[in-house]
Amino acid sequence: MKKEDLIECHKRIAPYIHRTPVFTSRLLNKMAGAELFFKCENFQRMGAYKMRGATNAILQLTEEQKGKGVVTHSSGNFAQALSLAAKSLGVKAYIVMPSSAPQVKKDAVKEYGGKIIECESTLEARITAAQKIQMEIGTTFIHPSNNVDVILGQGTACMELLGEQSDLDFVVVPVGGGGLIAGTALAAHYFGKDCKVIGAEPFEVDDAYRSLKSGKIELNKTTNTIADGLKTQLGDKNFPLIQKYVNSIIRVTEEEIVNAMQLIWERMKIIIEPSSAVALAAVLREKEKFIGKKVGIIVSGGNVDLKNLPF
Amino acid sequence: MKKEDLIECHKRIAPYIHRTPVFTSRLLNKMAGAELFFKCENFQRMGAYKMRGATNAILQLTEEQKGKGVVTHSSGNFAQALSLAAKSLGVKAYIVMPSSAPQVKKDAVKEYGGKIIECESTLEARITAAQKIQMEIGTTFIHPSNNVDVILGQGTACMELLGEQSDLDFVVVPVGGGGLIAGTALAAHYFGKDCKVIGAEPFEVDDAYRSLKSGKIELNKTTNTIADGLKTQLGDKNFPLIQKYVNSIIRVTEEEIVNAMQLIWERMKIIIEPSSAVALAAVLREKEKFIGKKVGIIVSGGNVDLKNLPF
Repeated sequence: MKKEDLIECHKRIAPYIHRTPVFTSRLLNKMAGAELFFKCENFQRMGAYKMRGATNAILQLTEEQKGKGVVTHSSGNFAQALSLAAKSLGVKAYIVMPSSAPQVKKDAVKEYGGKIIECESTLEARITAAQKIQMEIGTTFIHPSNNVDVILGQGTACMELLGEQSDLDFVVVPVGGGGLIAGTALAAHYFGKDCKVIGAEPFEVDDAYRSLKSGKIELNKTTNTIADGLKTQLGDKNFPLIQKYVNSIIRVTEEEIVNAMQLIWERMKIIIEPSSAVALAAVLREKEKFIGKKVGIIVSGGNVDLKNLPF
Repeated sequence: MKKEDLIECHKRIAPYIHRTPVFTSRLLNKMAGAELFFKCENFQRMGAYKMRGATNAILQLTEEQKGKGVVTHSSGNFAQALSLAAKSLGVKAYIVMPSSAPQVKKDAVKEYGGKIIECESTLEARITAAQKIQMEIGTTFIHPSNNVDVILGQGTACMELLGEQSDLDFVVVPVGGGGLIAGTALAAHYFGKDCKVIGAEPFEVDDAYRSLKSGKIELNKTTNTIADGLKTQLGDKNFPLIQKYVNSIIRVTEEEIVNAMQLIWERMKIIIEPSSAVALAAVLREKEKFIGKKVGIIVSGGNVDLKNLPF
């Protein structure tokens, strides 16, 4: 993927997404001993950066493909993002979701106009259900993170950040399925000045950390983390980019995630989800690495259940 | 107070405060049937607009007065604001607070460098304690809301809002001690184009509503509200301005306050305190008044105890 691909992608999706603000905090700078720049994708449409990739993927379809709709399997932010992006573009979205998914997630997808296809909660059942719709209706499957157009779309957040703050030494970003970190790494490579990209991951789901070590895609052994957006695994489209362009991955404890989340809520007065707090937690954990540096942090999203908070 | 007083005040305090952003939300616009512009003073230094008035009041002192420090009685945002404003300006701040005040409030004042003077929780005890310091040390007493310099300072938030959005039909603002609404009303009078100012108040502490009806300052009979910043009463400096420049006051129920707070947290992803939610609650309660209009909302602050939320 070339620099021009990112530039074209950003132009393509700009009318459908928010250009989110970059926030700073004196107090958090003081705590970290670094200059932190928070790219607030929690203020993105539907509350997460996933809107970028979903929009780009749909816009790259032919008119015929658009007429037959899109399908994905996700019970998280990508389900909502694809639903809303599709609705904005007059396209039908089918969302495969385990019937055991929380009602609040199902309601959110319905609110954004997505059609839910319920299935059992195994990966096989999800794949089968999605394939059935592809075959029957001819809809296009769009993977939440392992899709080139999705990766490019996610990269535009870092591209905007570097457009405002071109001299970042680091960008720190949470790692889940790998779409955000791959896109971010591409953007930092093309638009940064020797800007290193660092992934942040819970110890409880450190598949990306282990994948970088072993050189092949590793799976998670446990998924016992509050960062519910980071439980997924890397894919063959994003892993090579991560290997090529990502500097390293920092792992953090559950307690560090909750503490970082509380710090951002209390001090910056913004609502971020646990998965997003992982990035600040990583900066505070390996402080010495970032001392005196300019550090971008991608605040990936702000969708939380207020009735079920960790503090 | 003249237009120039506000302009001078804004110039004076600008180096010490944040110019806070104005947020909008498609979804809340749709719900209200109006165009809403949220002036986010929850992002102000120390988390509330009070920073503006406190800074202006201290900057208006003579060097001799500054040398002897400032004193106020408050256990809320003004205590923290005066402490931080004083610290920024190299002035000592004494904060009279009931010994029964929550530890978290005392800690916040100490963190900002204020010196706490504890007293009993009656108004008389507070006044006596503050007078004692005035007499002994010669410190200047600064009232949280009934002080001309404080009123001017608070008015600069609305001044900035109208600087960005000059064609507002209404500005809606919570009413507590009357400093914010009086300053807002002055700013709307001088900088708006026929911009009406409306106060928002809980039914449980509707002293300002009753004061406007009776033509004299009324006291609260109950203080049983979640909007803990709005329990105070009007004063002789701000009440005449409120009588002259405020259009009306809308009262809201506790349930409406919590619902509006949850809406803003969930949809705008920003943390606001219950007192701030009162303004949106008022707009949603008397919807027909605002249909099709441009409505500014002063989001007064974002200081909440995350361990004690109403949802």
